[in-house]
Amino acid sequence: MVIELIGLVAFAASGALAAVRAKLDVFGVVVLGLTTALGGGIIRDVLLGIHPPTTLRSWPYLLTAAVTGIAVFFFHPQVARLRRAVLLADAVGLGVFVTAGTTTALQHDVPAYTACLIGMTVGIGGGAIRDVLLREIPMVLRKEIYAVAALAGAVVVPIAAYFKIPDLWGTVIGSALVVAIRLTALWRHWNAPVPRAGETAES
Amino acid sequence: MVIELIGLVAFAASGALAAVRAKLDVFGVVVLGLTTALGGGIIRDVLLGIHPPTTLRSWPYLLTAAVTGIAVFFFHPQVARLRRAVLLADAVGLGVFVTAGTTTALQHDVPAYTACLIGMTVGIGGGAIRDVLLREIPMVLRKEIYAVAALAGAVVVPIAAYFKIPDLWGTVIGSALVVAIRLTALWRHWNAPVPRAGETAES
Amino acid sequence: MVIELIGLVAFAASGALAAVRAKLDVFGVVVLGLTTALGGGIIRDVLLGIHPPTTLRSWPYLLTAAVTGIAVFFFHPQVARLRRAVLLADAVGLGVFVTAGTTTALQHDVPAYTACLIGMTVGIGGGAIRDVLLREIPMVLRKEIYAVAALAGAVVVPIAAYFKIPDLWGTVIGSALVVAIRLTALWRHWNAPVPRAGETAES
Repeated sequence: MVIELIGLVAFAASGALAAVRAKLDVFGVVVLGLTTALGGGIIRDVLLGIHPPTTLRSWPYLLTAAVTGIAVFFFHPQVARLRRAVLLADAVGLGVFVTAGTTTALQHDVPAYTACLIGMTVGIGGGAIRDVLLREIPMVLRKEIYAVAALAGAVVVPIAAYFKIPDLWGTVIGSALVVAIRLTALWRHWNAPVPRAGETAES
Repeated sequence: MVIELIGLVAFAASGALAAVRAKLDVFGVVVLGLTTALGGGIIRDVLLGIHPPTTLRSWPYLLTAAVTGIAVFFFHPQVARLRRAVLLADAVGLGVFVTAGTTTALQHDVPAYTACLIGMTVGIGGGAIRDVLLREIPMVLRKEIYAVAALAGAVVVPIAAYFKIPDLWGTVIGSALVVAIRLTALWRHWNAPVPRAGETAES
Repeated sequence: MVIELIGLVAFAASGALAAVRAKLDVFGVVVLGLTTALGGGIIRDVLLGIHPPTTLRSWPYLLTAAVTGIAVFFFHPQVARLRRAVLLADAVGLGVFVTAGTTTALQHDVPAYTACLIGMTVGIGGGAIRDVLLREIPMVLRKEIYAVAALAGAVVVPIAAYFKIPDLWGTVIGSALVVAIRLTALWRHWNAPVPRAGETAES
């Protein structure tokens, strides 16, 4: 729960910071922070048929995300200076959201690979919505093996469940793996291969 | 019902006008008009688990939105000249959609703050989809306290319900509040504060 | 089923090719291929209340779309040269997705016009998501009467059902109509009329 709130704060901060950079007003900043933090969970609940979405019913989540957005609006130069802390928190958030999403999906009796896809979507979805709203190509499509880190963390969860390892440990191990991959990728400037050059005629 | 159709026409017209400005063809204009008018309601029904969405099952709604789109395609110079009428209708539409959305959500036994969030989404969602499809940053994130007007209208509904005021009155008062805030904002060129300048390093 | 897989391959290839052109990395190419191929079906299931979406539970679909994405990444110059084959496959995919989507919706006891709208969305949705993620105005809003072809194919299905023609034949006839309209439009450079010039004042 505490870890989940850290992930929520990290994602709300990343959305709010992106909004500040796009020179949105205070409400735009808060709305984008909320959307980034809650978007993945809402997609998960819509896919699994949980109505209304959990994140919209949980006021601690809403309040945490809204306060984070407001704080970023007022203190964004300080927050932007904490670049490393923000990237670390984002990696933790990705790990927690992916593994918790996969766990929730598994509890709804879906095949393991479906649960992993839904878990990935929970981790990736909020940021993708943020980027689309700000007219960016989503970072997950472009950068630093974000999608692979999410996939690796998601896969840990059904494997742990298969070996009867308690859910909490699966979450912790999966999240740690995501954080490790993301930080290594950032540190070593890993990126996935791009298409080789060639005739890419308009089709 | 009549008021609801006015809101629908206003939203369909705003989507179709935006499509005309983007030089889309007649089908693009109609599709964008439909999407803008029906998008918010579809999001509401997906979040609340109403399958299939009401707006897709109600042919008067579909017909009204489609006819509006076609009319805008043929008479767009005249419609664009009615700028004030369009802005007024858009404000009425926002008010009606937000309050009706909040009322519907309350009937599905969700907490009051969840109902308000869903109601806001109904009012804001269609226009956000319109802007994303046309590669604009959604107006609700940028302009004239659109989100605040929607929030204020939404909050009126559960307060009215708490004091046993009939739903219809809650809808009317909430809608009037939205219209009043929007028109005042447009008239006085109110905008919400933007972030103070400062180092916004790329993170 | 075989036809459905052809449609899936075509849509996955179109998403992956668009991603290659946008210079995304290998994971971006695969993710965009998956999204384009599966997006329409996911929207359908969310609208109809099928949880979790069929396409996320069917591993042959997932595998086919993923392999297509990877193949396009490695062989994109060859694929891009098959321009006509890709356009033909895309037309077949549109036809199959629209008619199959309409058939599925009709089985869920919705009115015929609702089923047609949902069927159109299945055919159009994946490509629209692809274009939005790559910051393009969706092709369906701009080009070669894509929306009309989808609508025509969708309408065939309830008409066939009304005359007690078996589902399979409705699907085949509807798909053939979509393919015929799309290919004729491409061949003759048909486009729908655009708005006549005129004062399009900012509203």
